[in-house]
Amino acid sequence: MLILMNSDHTKADLEAVLEKVRALKLKPHVIPGAQSVAVGITGNAGALDPREFTVLPGVRDAVPVTKSYKLAGRDFKHGDTLVRVGPYEIGGKGFLAIAGPCAVESEEQTLRIAKAVKAAGAQLLRGGAFKPRTSPYSFQGLGLEGIRILAKAKKETGLPIVTEVLDQRTLEQVAEVADVLQVGARNMQNFALLKELGRLRKPVMLKRGLSATLDEWLMSAEYLLSEGNGQVILCERGVRTFSDHARNTLDLTVVPAVKELSHLPIIVDPSHATGVRSRVAPMARAAAAAGAHGIMVEVHDDPKRALCDGAQALPPSEFKALMGDLSKIASAVGHKMSPQKAK
Amino acid sequence: MLILMNSDHTKADLEAVLEKVRALKLKPHVIPGAQSVAVGITGNAGALDPREFTVLPGVRDAVPVTKSYKLAGRDFKHGDTLVRVGPYEIGGKGFLAIAGPCAVESEEQTLRIAKAVKAAGAQLLRGGAFKPRTSPYSFQGLGLEGIRILAKAKKETGLPIVTEVLDQRTLEQVAEVADVLQVGARNMQNFALLKELGRLRKPVMLKRGLSATLDEWLMSAEYLLSEGNGQVILCERGVRTFSDHARNTLDLTVVPAVKELSHLPIIVDPSHATGVRSRVAPMARAAAAAGAHGIMVEVHDDPKRALCDGAQALPPSEFKALMGDLSKIASAVGHKMSPQKAK
Amino acid sequence: MLILMNSDHTKADLEAVLEKVRALKLKPHVIPGAQSVAVGITGNAGALDPREFTVLPGVRDAVPVTKSYKLAGRDFKHGDTLVRVGPYEIGGKGFLAIAGPCAVESEEQTLRIAKAVKAAGAQLLRGGAFKPRTSPYSFQGLGLEGIRILAKAKKETGLPIVTEVLDQRTLEQVAEVADVLQVGARNMQNFALLKELGRLRKPVMLKRGLSATLDEWLMSAEYLLSEGNGQVILCERGVRTFSDHARNTLDLTVVPAVKELSHLPIIVDPSHATGVRSRVAPMARAAAAAGAHGIMVEVHDDPKRALCDGAQALPPSEFKALMGDLSKIASAVGHKMSPQKAK
Amino acid sequence: MLILMNSDHTKADLEAVLEKVRALKLKPHVIPGAQSVAVGITGNAGALDPREFTVLPGVRDAVPVTKSYKLAGRDFKHGDTLVRVGPYEIGGKGFLAIAGPCAVESEEQTLRIAKAVKAAGAQLLRGGAFKPRTSPYSFQGLGLEGIRILAKAKKETGLPIVTEVLDQRTLEQVAEVADVLQVGARNMQNFALLKELGRLRKPVMLKRGLSATLDEWLMSAEYLLSEGNGQVILCERGVRTFSDHARNTLDLTVVPAVKELSHLPIIVDPSHATGVRSRVAPMARAAAAAGAHGIMVEVHDDPKRALCDGAQALPPSEFKALMGDLSKIASAVGHKMSPQKAK
Repeated sequence: MLILMNSDHTKADLEAVLEKVRALKLKPHVIPGAQSVAVGITGNAGALDPREFTVLPGVRDAVPVTKSYKLAGRDFKHGDTLVRVGPYEIGGKGFLAIAGPCAVESEEQTLRIAKAVKAAGAQLLRGGAFKPRTSPYSFQGLGLEGIRILAKAKKETGLPIVTEVLDQRTLEQVAEVADVLQVGARNMQNFALLKELGRLRKPVMLKRGLSATLDEWLMSAEYLLSEGNGQVILCERGVRTFSDHARNTLDLTVVPAVKELSHLPIIVDPSHATGVRSRVAPMARAAAAAGAHGIMVEVHDDPKRALCDGAQALPPSEFKALMGDLSKIASAVGHKMSPQKAK
Repeated sequence: MLILMNSDHTKADLEAVLEKVRALKLKPHVIPGAQSVAVGITGNAGALDPREFTVLPGVRDAVPVTKSYKLAGRDFKHGDTLVRVGPYEIGGKGFLAIAGPCAVESEEQTLRIAKAVKAAGAQLLRGGAFKPRTSPYSFQGLGLEGIRILAKAKKETGLPIVTEVLDQRTLEQVAEVADVLQVGARNMQNFALLKELGRLRKPVMLKRGLSATLDEWLMSAEYLLSEGNGQVILCERGVRTFSDHARNTLDLTVVPAVKELSHLPIIVDPSHATGVRSRVAPMARAAAAAGAHGIMVEVHDDPKRALCDGAQALPPSEFKALMGDLSKIASAVGHKMSPQKAK
Repeated sequence: MLILMNSDHTKADLEAVLEKVRALKLKPHVIPGAQSVAVGITGNAGALDPREFTVLPGVRDAVPVTKSYKLAGRDFKHGDTLVRVGPYEIGGKGFLAIAGPCAVESEEQTLRIAKAVKAAGAQLLRGGAFKPRTSPYSFQGLGLEGIRILAKAKKETGLPIVTEVLDQRTLEQVAEVADVLQVGARNMQNFALLKELGRLRKPVMLKRGLSATLDEWLMSAEYLLSEGNGQVILCERGVRTFSDHARNTLDLTVVPAVKELSHLPIIVDPSHATGVRSRVAPMARAAAAAGAHGIMVEVHDDPKRALCDGAQALPPSEFKALMGDLSKIASAVGHKMSPQKAK
Repeated sequence: MLILMNSDHTKADLEAVLEKVRALKLKPHVIPGAQSVAVGITGNAGALDPREFTVLPGVRDAVPVTKSYKLAGRDFKHGDTLVRVGPYEIGGKGFLAIAGPCAVESEEQTLRIAKAVKAAGAQLLRGGAFKPRTSPYSFQGLGLEGIRILAKAKKETGLPIVTEVLDQRTLEQVAEVADVLQVGARNMQNFALLKELGRLRKPVMLKRGLSATLDEWLMSAEYLLSEGNGQVILCERGVRTFSDHARNTLDLTVVPAVKELSHLPIIVDPSHATGVRSRVAPMARAAAAAGAHGIMVEVHDDPKRALCDGAQALPPSEFKALMGDLSKIASAVGHKMSPQKAK
């Protein structure tokens, strides 16, 4: 922390700052300047709240020097984390696709789509059994019956499963089947849930909250890491802004930013970000070009009858064509599409 | 729902829309226009997803006509909901103040501040036992020990208690002591938690999420109402925008907007919104002038030593002066400060 | 500027930073820390671009210490600026209302409304002759004919005139009649226009841009001040956010923030911020309670036939009632409604 | 426009709406529904202001049906506009790069960099002579001397010139040299400037405003088109959001959105959007993958000594490598890098 004094601060103001620092058992360093004076603080283990100092008289600003996350940052771990999911490693120079229906609607629909995305080249299967819906009157998912269906789809296709966990009460049952436990955007700061997931030994895909800064996102990852679960995959899915031509604003610049600051893999979900089929493929391609480690897309073989978000689902044929493009683009930026290893 | 066709749509495009509407067991109404054609849909019980139609060829836009919330809206209930908390009613033409420390730090601190805010005129006591913190390394609250302390403070001062519930696992224990269960901004769309709270018969204060629209906020209230709990108080606490001169952007215009659209009471939390002591009182006054039913403010008698958000806490003396201003302003806009009824 | 080094920076990294500072003819100060090292820079006259340093290897961050504005800040001038407009002073502990139609539509309409707002207690008359419209097909204002009408309204009522200047080509003609030249939100960073206005000796009302930070707003004021025009009034009129229940998000917290950081007066325009009549009065009252030096509101005696923004115009009767409320609220927060001094 | 009535509207409310429609010389169509009634309006030439109706009693909402832009939309012109600049056509299935220094600093620097970007494969040269700067104390560009230097660079390299026009007073002189006149983000709604540019017969590059919706952006293009200048190139350069890990949030989803709604070409400026060198190339690649018609990037051969935005400038070697990547990615998405045709 660095404390910046106003140009017209008094001697007493400065003394009060020094005293406050010492009261926190930390060490102040007075730094004289041309216009004013600054006070550096050393000795703190974690982050300090700048406002502890900005409320003192004569203080202009207080600037954090230490990053708030540790385990999620490159300072802690230089090399890339590779998250093992079934036969795959997510991260590093790899690229892969997670595909499947928004919601598990029935056993037949799920098996059919699972086979279709496998045939189109997807490495993992996604599908929601518990659906977070803005309205209590919308379809909330099949629940545990949906989890049972996903287990069957995994058995039949060999595709590892990515599915969302919403509720502390059903976490264990979901974790028995899921290969990757997804935390949705709305739960990115559901700390009670994060702590429980941190105690599991299962990969977690942590979606970015609708208005989360990169720092907050990495701090939520830190909740998982600090409980002992290092298998964290980040997923950008669009943020909320004034911009109204798409469902959300896909923030692809976060991809190189994450890769600079963190060792964790990052994938992109263009389906939720755009909300409209015709923009999913362009944004999936852009994600690959930006250096993401993969994409997660919604695929449905009968989008008009989908119970959830049919408007953003790709038909299997479009998804297959997209996989071809992604393979070329990923390789143009030094990534390599993982060969499908499912049985 | 109203479907707007492009000016160059084909007959087949229109026919496909009509078929889709009929397939949903709804009734289409073709409306010819000067430039193009529109299709009105009637017969739907809940909201339809516009994107189901916008993906069809020849369709320009699809516009929802029915509001997505029902029980939370004035269409369902014209008169104001008055939420009973201890001897008070929140809503209507009343005004009151909820005050206390950000976090329960110790029994002594809590009792001391409880007495101070009571002396200054507060009607309810706030205090966090479970604290949602961005960092896993920040003080997380005293937990159930904090709840025990709040019970003691309530017994000693007679002030009803407002405290946050974070975790489905401790919900019942918190509900035993709390008079109002607070749902924090980060949990506004933690639907698993909302459903459990909807089954209780306790007032819930639902804070607006950092990037929640008014519609989404009322839909989260609808989760509570549709489970049978009608005792919902809304709380505006600032939203996240590009604006960087305050912690969040307090959106006071939402106060008259809520009062037009919903029968639920709305209060304002200027402490979290501004994050800085010197702006708390101006925004509390502005909230009263905007027509809010009350404010919730953080008060600490030794802000420099507060374990959480000391920078935004008012000392009891400033809070007392503020109560005087609020009483005048509330009455200038037709509200009335509730007389303190605690024993 | 303070440069923060990474914990794993090399000696060469640090040396490169010191060299860069010296190359800029500035003085570096090395500050050793527990985890890393920082470098303070002194000797710079204006602000440095932090990115000049953050791109160097081994640098974690670069933090500006000096505020970018000078003349607009309290460091430069402690006491409040009072802007003289006709017989009034705007700023300090005063409060006043600027009212009138959105657009000057005709001589008859303008005179009629001018008399009505005068009768209701307004101190200044507003009215747009040149209108900035999103669409080229919308009514663009009467132009110089509108300016002539405003001159007549001023002569008949004695009310000083506030009107917008859009175009460098007509600036002089507008300035002949206007008592306050308004710069609209869209032109807040039209620096060519600001420089020309800075050379005039007329009060300027500088509206905040739709996505302007407080710093940028004060920097635009600095363009005016640094050219020699110190008569600047700031006007908050709502910013653009994701929030969709009102036309813009009125950021009232900026009122106490401006008053802390700057000596310039600040008024609030609730008409453009809310866009809807029923929310104008609540937000005008909230602005007064927040400590603003005045409000600017649109008044029309036949809103249904207004050529521009009729939906947000108050009828004179509602405006008159509002003036009564504002007088009470302003005085509850230590401000005083200026008595009307027009002939 | 479609007017939606409240479920509890009265007969008189409906009658008032019909009367208002007829008063505007338009035709109302009453559409009975299950819950309520709607009124369709036909006969209007341009867009109506929804708020004209939403303020009437009994009205729930008013929904525009007609798009506000005409000439900029695909309804007006189906095929892609190809903007001719020197020997190039921008738009369609082409892709090209505009590169050069942020600011023209001297003749020597500009010629050196112009030759370097030409050697690296750029088709057009960019360089700012008039610089819009947040602070009046920052380098404002060389002005007309800079324009003279650009003319020389064009003569020596044959590269067409893209440069910004800021001021109505110097527009003609800039237009004599520039091949493309750039309107900066801050001037996107400087309608006086747009009208003058619309009367020229020179290509205009219209940057998206920091908080402009897609609709507003196309409406600003409409100002140019409706004055007779059809040679408009759109440029996405990042928007302002809460997200703080980059200078702005690059909204790449706008690329497919523009291509669906408008016939105008769209390019992307990753330098201003990201503000940091290491993220420029990933976002340039992402732009190509998203289907943009080109990129505009800042290149400097001595970024550490650049007078403006050195932190985001690519050195020529990195730019050359990027051009290779872009060629591959553009072709993976069906675009073709224009061969360099400069003499």
